[in-house]
Amino acid sequence: ISDSMWVAPGTPSLCYALRGIVYAYITVAGPAVDIHSGVHGGVVANPHVRLSHLLATIAKPDGSVAIDGFYDQVRPLSEAEREQFAQVPLDVAAYRERLGVESLLVEDKVEVLARRWAEPTFEVHGITGGYTGPGAKTIVPAFAEAKVSMRLVPDQEPEVLIAALVDHVARNCPEATIQLDSAAPPFVAETTGPHYQAARNAMRIGFDADPLLIREGGSIPAALLLKEHLDAPVVLIPICAADDNPHSPNEKFEATHFEGGIRTFIAYLHELASTIRV
Amino acid sequence: ISDSMWVAPGTPSLCYALRGIVYAYITVAGPAVDIHSGVHGGVVANPHVRLSHLLATIAKPDGSVAIDGFYDQVRPLSEAEREQFAQVPLDVAAYRERLGVESLLVEDKVEVLARRWAEPTFEVHGITGGYTGPGAKTIVPAFAEAKVSMRLVPDQEPEVLIAALVDHVARNCPEATIQLDSAAPPFVAETTGPHYQAARNAMRIGFDADPLLIREGGSIPAALLLKEHLDAPVVLIPICAADDNPHSPNEKFEATHFEGGIRTFIAYLHELASTIRV
Repeated sequence: ISDSMWVAPGTPSLCYALRGIVYAYITVAGPAVDIHSGVHGGVVANPHVRLSHLLATIAKPDGSVAIDGFYDQVRPLSEAEREQFAQVPLDVAAYRERLGVESLLVEDKVEVLARRWAEPTFEVHGITGGYTGPGAKTIVPAFAEAKVSMRLVPDQEPEVLIAALVDHVARNCPEATIQLDSAAPPFVAETTGPHYQAARNAMRIGFDADPLLIREGGSIPAALLLKEHLDAPVVLIPICAADDNPHSPNEKFEATHFEGGIRTFIAYLHELASTIRV
Repeated sequence: ISDSMWVAPGTPSLCYALRGIVYAYITVAGPAVDIHSGVHGGVVANPHVRLSHLLATIAKPDGSVAIDGFYDQVRPLSEAEREQFAQVPLDVAAYRERLGVESLLVEDKVEVLARRWAEPTFEVHGITGGYTGPGAKTIVPAFAEAKVSMRLVPDQEPEVLIAALVDHVARNCPEATIQLDSAAPPFVAETTGPHYQAARNAMRIGFDADPLLIREGGSIPAALLLKEHLDAPVVLIPICAADDNPHSPNEKFEATHFEGGIRTFIAYLHELASTIRV
């Protein structure tokens, strides 16, 4: 699977772990339709206010998640992995500048990578309901809905976190409803054996450098499905540059990475064909 | 000015007071653009989370406002006005049903009218930023912005409440910025004198009933401007039905109210012309 990215500019990488995901919509209902907030304001609960209170009970400003039991299944990062993270040539100041923020929630390199690769999150992606056009309109909205997701790390199970979220919402905002969009567990590949070895050799040919072994904070539900249903090893071979900006405006893909990727996949398939018996 | 509505179906009303308003945009900035919440999630503060925490410190689920000093300038409702509110033929159960909510924040009729007419509010009208299209997208948004307003009652001054809001935001979410859209103080008309008397007589002719003297929770900034700049009395003659749903989908205006309004304004101008010397 080639659906992730390098961790730092100019650093070919092989990926061995992905975070899982639970994506859901949390909705607080209000009046039947948007109503005049001057005429009626003060007697009708504002759904955006209720939703804000609920979200504030879930996600803390420091990036932590306050759902009961949220971290119970998190496998602590091993000392070996922390040392591996320390070897990643990520320039945190340059990374922060690339994102365009004044500060990150953590600034130490190993902590930055641990947060992105080995710790779960709760994110709000967008909030709908009420008036969202240009300028002002004075209404109490008929509803407020948050698009949210949790990223999961080993050994967190989607079903456990969905139940924890549903329970948290029921206790903190009984008038809210949750609709599940999708769920996928985290994924960890075995990096020993001929497939990852072939990928390592192929990257050396494709990009003229030993690849770094990294994790990825994003989710590829197909990885686990393929592994389980085909009972086959899954190798994650990213060829995107660290600044390709997936999911952002002006997403790009470098021509040199296209060329290096072609060389990598030819070399990978060639080595597999010559070393592995089907 | 004819820009408000009756308080209950079939109850011609004259209006003598309006709430003021302060409308503003509160924005929390995030990364330079929307970024992948899998790849980067955990190290970048989510603007929607920060905004939710801020809004939760301002507006409480019971409809109250937790900005320091927010209620300091509120003129307590007089016993005479409470008695006047008690006379309003508002069926709270029917009103609640018309709005389409299971419960109101208060259910007693006088409290309902006091909340709508004589108490200030803080409402969230819509929240922008991030992904608000159909379905799922996994990003940390570049910003989160709330469209908010405060309704003001006598003797609250917009400048005082703007300063209180700005101060509250600075203390509770220093990374947020506020942009002011508009501000207008509350308004109270003198209901003695020939103008309101002419309006009362005219409503009797237009709608075959003695008008009820009511307040209005909405805001008409022009009312105070006309009064101050023209040094003239301002009379508020609403001819909208209680269920016309201003600012809502399917806003309507009844033909019978059009006709009654025409009769009312002819009678009003006729009486003024015959009794008042310019």
